[in-house]
Amino acid sequence: MDVLRKPAFSEAEETLDPFDWSDVRKLSHRMVDDSIDYLRDVRERPAWRKMPFEVKETFERPLPRSPMPLDEVYRQVSDNLMPYPMGNIHPRFWSWYMGSSNFTGALADFLAAVQGSNLGGGNHAAALMDVQVVNWCKEMMGFPASASGTLVSGGSMANLLALTVARNFKAGVNIREDGIGAIERPLRFYASDQVHSCHRKAVEALGLGNKSLRRVPTDAELRIDIAALRAAISEDRAAGFNPACLIATAGTVNTGSIDDLEALADLAAEEALWLHVDGCIGALLAIAPANAYRVSGITRADSVALDPHKWLHAPFEVGCVLVRDASAHRGAFAVTQEYLESTPRGLASGNWLYEYGLQTTRGFRALKVWMALLEHGVEKFGRLIDQNIAQARYLTSLIEQEPLLELVAPTSINIVCFRYKHDGIDEVGRKALNLEIMLRLQEEGIAVLSDTTVHGEHCLRVAVNNHRTRHEDLDMLIQETLRLGALLMP
Amino acid sequence: MDVLRKPAFSEAEETLDPFDWSDVRKLSHRMVDDSIDYLRDVRERPAWRKMPFEVKETFERPLPRSPMPLDEVYRQVSDNLMPYPMGNIHPRFWSWYMGSSNFTGALADFLAAVQGSNLGGGNHAAALMDVQVVNWCKEMMGFPASASGTLVSGGSMANLLALTVARNFKAGVNIREDGIGAIERPLRFYASDQVHSCHRKAVEALGLGNKSLRRVPTDAELRIDIAALRAAISEDRAAGFNPACLIATAGTVNTGSIDDLEALADLAAEEALWLHVDGCIGALLAIAPANAYRVSGITRADSVALDPHKWLHAPFEVGCVLVRDASAHRGAFAVTQEYLESTPRGLASGNWLYEYGLQTTRGFRALKVWMALLEHGVEKFGRLIDQNIAQARYLTSLIEQEPLLELVAPTSINIVCFRYKHDGIDEVGRKALNLEIMLRLQEEGIAVLSDTTVHGEHCLRVAVNNHRTRHEDLDMLIQETLRLGALLMP
Ligand SMILES: Cc1ncc(COP(=O)(O)O)c(C=O)c1O
Ligand SMILES: Cc1ncc(COP(=O)(O)O)c(C=O)c1O
Repeated sequence: MDVLRKPAFSEAEETLDPFDWSDVRKLSHRMVDDSIDYLRDVRERPAWRKMPFEVKETFERPLPRSPMPLDEVYRQVSDNLMPYPMGNIHPRFWSWYMGSSNFTGALADFLAAVQGSNLGGGNHAAALMDVQVVNWCKEMMGFPASASGTLVSGGSMANLLALTVARNFKAGVNIREDGIGAIERPLRFYASDQVHSCHRKAVEALGLGNKSLRRVPTDAELRIDIAALRAAISEDRAAGFNPACLIATAGTVNTGSIDDLEALADLAAEEALWLHVDGCIGALLAIAPANAYRVSGITRADSVALDPHKWLHAPFEVGCVLVRDASAHRGAFAVTQEYLESTPRGLASGNWLYEYGLQTTRGFRALKVWMALLEHGVEKFGRLIDQNIAQARYLTSLIEQEPLLELVAPTSINIVCFRYKHDGIDEVGRKALNLEIMLRLQEEGIAVLSDTTVHGEHCLRVAVNNHRTRHEDLDMLIQETLRLGALLMP
Repeated sequence: MDVLRKPAFSEAEETLDPFDWSDVRKLSHRMVDDSIDYLRDVRERPAWRKMPFEVKETFERPLPRSPMPLDEVYRQVSDNLMPYPMGNIHPRFWSWYMGSSNFTGALADFLAAVQGSNLGGGNHAAALMDVQVVNWCKEMMGFPASASGTLVSGGSMANLLALTVARNFKAGVNIREDGIGAIERPLRFYASDQVHSCHRKAVEALGLGNKSLRRVPTDAELRIDIAALRAAISEDRAAGFNPACLIATAGTVNTGSIDDLEALADLAAEEALWLHVDGCIGALLAIAPANAYRVSGITRADSVALDPHKWLHAPFEVGCVLVRDASAHRGAFAVTQEYLESTPRGLASGNWLYEYGLQTTRGFRALKVWMALLEHGVEKFGRLIDQNIAQARYLTSLIEQEPLLELVAPTSINIVCFRYKHDGIDEVGRKALNLEIMLRLQEEGIAVLSDTTVHGEHCLRVAVNNHRTRHEDLDMLIQETLRLGALLMP
């Protein structure tokens, strides 16, 4: 080797750190000020707006080769990125289902990246906070301290991990070693026909196949039909399948309906099935004084997926899975022995948090949840959930008052499904009209809704999962929907 | 419904936004200043330090019920969290394998959370930037523009997605619908015995089973033995298995060795196997002028996992998977038809980015990569990679000069495996001694290394994946190792 002496370029060793922090300091302060103004004034901006062609074009530029001053980089971010967000931070964004983020959470994401820790595990403060936030999730769900859990990228991953544990636990073979091919009686999972698409993706990824997930019909309130479920299970047993897991939904994405968790817990006990609750939408009702009763059965689940980036409004991403049987959880993922600590002391003497899921490196998701919970207290988050539900009921009552509007599904929690109706048009015309109302509401920057189909009926859908929404925003929605309906009527 | 009138509490609707932004503004500026000082002075602090009992204890507090002023929350963060990081931001952190984060990336994570977009998809600026960063990754890897890709939580998920695509593509049955049970000839995947543990987790999660992943022996340079690989494949074919996928490692976690990608690409073509390259460590060599030749074969892969949170030092988390055959990629995950756009215009008219992986909600990982690439230019990142490799060679030469130290594996790129040796002790004593040296280096705050076993030999391991490391840091490592070795010799 000919590199024995300290190389001559040693003085010139490069780094990503700025040579002089003072310019960066000034610019960072400007970013903070701009960001605060951005959120303070969000109500004054349109809920969504189309990107001009010149803006879109900038995102087609090739890989940058040479440097550019950071303030010029930031100018591009300010000009081309910040004015065209998805819009979920806006008070009148009610599309799909997601949280609205919050400023404390954004500061936390910044501090987490500055502090830089890898949550794969180890003996350091962020790892302890990660465990603490999981413990807080257990407290919120009424799960015992002995239960296990982990923070993940979101609800889809939380569900996937839970179904992995359930699969392995119920397989009756050494599935980790031998795979699904070793199973004689194919496993069957059950959920309602309202189940979120991530479960399909999960059973497919897990090698079980989409057909291993039976979709059971729902009743008029869009809850799983327990009798039909019972029938499906015994049919499957008779046909030689191995009924393994019930997936209950606490808050469906379509209408917010909540399966009868107590009845499902009874059935799971009776039939010796794993009970997983997809609570990405509704699990956090458990902290909302006026609505907690709706999910009281959740404490009986074997596993729960919940989603702090929804009703706790943590910036993306953070989901959480809890598993009652901690050793089943770890047993599904760990690649080292429990008693085997890498070192008796030092950094490697801590918890190996990566043993509870599919990531190795793990980001520091806990801090944004931790800081916001400390700042506001869980009681306020509970009140905000109740507030969204009261707002959805208020909107429901406005719709019920309007002869030109109709509800398409009962409002269970914070999701309202309705449509503009008119006797003069047929089904196809009505769908086109409602779609056009939805698009105009967006394009005029008024509000962002989505559309869906409930038991075969097309409708508009308002998911009030937003800490900035006020009643006046819902008043405006009704007014504008009526205005556009009248305007667009063929 | 009795909630017809605008409820009386309307005035008092709560939000997570501060009532008065000016206090938050002041506090945010303080956080920025503290964070800049924190990074500017990181070299002056110990590389790691143990948490006092009183600090650890604070992470056992229960779920907070009532509010607390944000500056008090921040005081707790400053006192209990910031002083005890994992340490990978420190210039003398060389443990496991991860990046060191960077301040621009931290600002980007902040801005991403402020802007709040969900990268599940849609017609908004962040979605375009997400696609742009994936395109930049293709450019870096020499992949065609027609290839597909997605940003994920890290290398483990990137590998898992690629193996899912490979599994589905090679299964020969409708595996998404029917599952692995429908496969007649069990699939076989091949990797070297140095393969990262995330691949075991992946094949287990995918229902293939650990035994579907054959570990092939490695040569003296820790690269997969091609002759042994050939033999394994024909043995498996003869035994009725279906050889499906080669997993090449470009940069093993143990020693940084790089499998012969050209030979593996030839073999994959010959045997009609999927070639996946785990490039979490080494794929980015492709941008490093002095070392790109080492991974020239990567452009021939069917899929590549790369990891911007390693050698691009993006704050956690961001990994990336590329798949040459875009329709195989989408075909493994999409749950809606390609031609089916939810709406012809508006927010829902964009790309559905969640169709390329297992998440639904996706965080805005792209911004931190985008801003840092724009600021520094990819050429600087390439030079930083060359710099780390030169530093590892420098360290190697220092070790070769020292009679009391010895290399345990050849240094391929930026990972150096060595140990303190002494004729007076046996193997057990040597392992204990080296472990103790490693722990003292940590506990005295000097440097963070890890230990490993290479072809049966225990050793210390220095992974120089750090944009803050200087040659003088490596000089110090040698001095201190020799000092501790002499001190601790039995
Ligand atoms: C019921 C339900 N489950 C799971 C998910 C997926 O959660 P995430 O988007 O966090 O992956 C959603 C998302 O809306 C959902 O509504
Ligand atoms: C070779 C290799 N593959 C995969 C991974 C996993 O990457 P991540 O930690 O980003 O999940 C690592 C991590 O060090 C690695 O070294």
